[in-house]
Amino acid sequence: MEVIDILKRYSSIVDEELDRVLATVEPDKLQESSEHLIRAGGKKLRPALVMLSCEAVGGKREDAVKTAAAVELIHTFSLIHDDIMDKDEMRRGKPSVHMIWGEPMAILAGDTLFSKAFEAVLETGTDHVPSENVISALKTVVGSCIDICEGQAFDMCFEGNFDVSEEAYMKMIYKKTAALIAAATKSGALIGAGSPEQVEALAEYGKLIGLAFQIQDDYLDVVSEEEDLGKPVGSDIVEGKMTLMVVKALANASSEDKEEIISILKTNSDTNVERAIELFEKYGSIKYTYDVAHDNVERAKQLLDIVEDSSAKEALMLLADFVLERTH
Amino acid sequence: MEVIDILKRYSSIVDEELDRVLATVEPDKLQESSEHLIRAGGKKLRPALVMLSCEAVGGKREDAVKTAAAVELIHTFSLIHDDIMDKDEMRRGKPSVHMIWGEPMAILAGDTLFSKAFEAVLETGTDHVPSENVISALKTVVGSCIDICEGQAFDMCFEGNFDVSEEAYMKMIYKKTAALIAAATKSGALIGAGSPEQVEALAEYGKLIGLAFQIQDDYLDVVSEEEDLGKPVGSDIVEGKMTLMVVKALANASSEDKEEIISILKTNSDTNVERAIELFEKYGSIKYTYDVAHDNVERAKQLLDIVEDSSAKEALMLLADFVLERTH
Repeated sequence: MEVIDILKRYSSIVDEELDRVLATVEPDKLQESSEHLIRAGGKKLRPALVMLSCEAVGGKREDAVKTAAAVELIHTFSLIHDDIMDKDEMRRGKPSVHMIWGEPMAILAGDTLFSKAFEAVLETGTDHVPSENVISALKTVVGSCIDICEGQAFDMCFEGNFDVSEEAYMKMIYKKTAALIAAATKSGALIGAGSPEQVEALAEYGKLIGLAFQIQDDYLDVVSEEEDLGKPVGSDIVEGKMTLMVVKALANASSEDKEEIISILKTNSDTNVERAIELFEKYGSIKYTYDVAHDNVERAKQLLDIVEDSSAKEALMLLADFVLERTH
Repeated sequence: MEVIDILKRYSSIVDEELDRVLATVEPDKLQESSEHLIRAGGKKLRPALVMLSCEAVGGKREDAVKTAAAVELIHTFSLIHDDIMDKDEMRRGKPSVHMIWGEPMAILAGDTLFSKAFEAVLETGTDHVPSENVISALKTVVGSCIDICEGQAFDMCFEGNFDVSEEAYMKMIYKKTAALIAAATKSGALIGAGSPEQVEALAEYGKLIGLAFQIQDDYLDVVSEEEDLGKPVGSDIVEGKMTLMVVKALANASSEDKEEIISILKTNSDTNVERAIELFEKYGSIKYTYDVAHDNVERAKQLLDIVEDSSAKEALMLLADFVLERTH
């Protein structure tokens, strides 16, 4: 089975639940603004990971649907608020929520999705699922929300600061991106009543593919063709964004080259993109980024040894590779 | 015991918990912006209601401290986001969070408090408290968050709309203000393992004093002296705000008077405040507002018959009256 078919199948399950969860929101403007991004497509990778992790440890997919919806609601809430903060006008090929309904309603739409996320996970039936597992799943999901806020704050604080260590950078992307993916796989394993070792392994699997997802993003920005990327090559460089490639190059560069890299990142123009890439190459930071992403995915796949062979396990293997292969 | 002493005593208990909850937030900017409004004073009425409701049904105050902190975190989160939406520059005599740290960090600070609220309530120990009660308390608190978002959205949609029914207005203030107060008293009673009847009565008590709180606000704006109010008399009229007084007067006024009231509210100037009050008086809407607030408080106090006499019950009686007596 192809990754894209797996995602489609799980997406249709969670979409139904998301429709149900948001059906009661009022007034109309709040409902429409809350639903906009949920319905704008998106791969729905995170809810698929919740349900697959549940199945992989022997649980029932149905039991994990509400938690899956919760994780997608949290992801969407964070995108809506991030777009306001970053003044991003487009998302998934459509105008951002705040561009259509204005910032106040967009803030509220995010808050509503956030509240609805907790409502959804609290509705997880306790017939098959021990209530302490539901509470642990909830704690995991809540913990990742705090991480998302902290990750975004670190990211904002890093802006214009070229003195970020690799450790600090990894912590930022862990919190901003990987924590919710780790919460998806961990909460799925908890709802599926996996053993503590399985729960831990799936949490780590989620963390590793989440980190790989973000790092591969950095990598693809530099090595892709424009038609695959859907945006010009080197946009991160033009925007002066901190990436693993930049962090690594700055750490290893001579003071002269370091100065040049920083000056290119500060220019916010595409005239020196090629020179920046040349300097990244010189200090091995493109290969390093590639290696870290691939190494994380390999380690993630090995962690799946802890569960028995199943179609869910196979899908998780494919999804691990998918975070590397995807084009935008 | 005086109300102010009761609030002080409970405030010092919850402040300690709030400090603990927010101690781990990073980076520094996010921590400072998250703590700002929590430390800016405020009566901490809601956490006192959680703990007192718990005690009133025979529960231990300590068991309710985390839920009390959660409710205050939610209240503060909603104030921070409301101030951004309403462009309010001051709160509790200090600059609003977005005035000091900017809107992006203020959005994040709100989101962080919101996440921390769920973390706090999830930490409620299950030694004395049955886990189904913890989950019910959590559902109550989450439900009130959805109400807060919807109430704020209704309020925004009412702006410039003078065709709001009394029912629609009451629903708006219930969601915006009373739902969280009802969640405070209900969750306290749940954590205190009150009987279903006690839980229901305390929920209703919270709803009634919450509505009275908001309605009395409308009333005081018109009948107070400026020195008690801390702002000019009739500010709501100058701002063209929808209040119970306006809704009632518009419903009963002749079409000529209705037009005059609307035109005064649209002017956004203080030249016709006295004339507006005269018209409110003419249609009995000032007395009506007074009566609704007082009637709600009386009914709230009667509902406390369901619990045995105790100092907590006495405090809840005093707090019901307090929502009417308070000056700003």
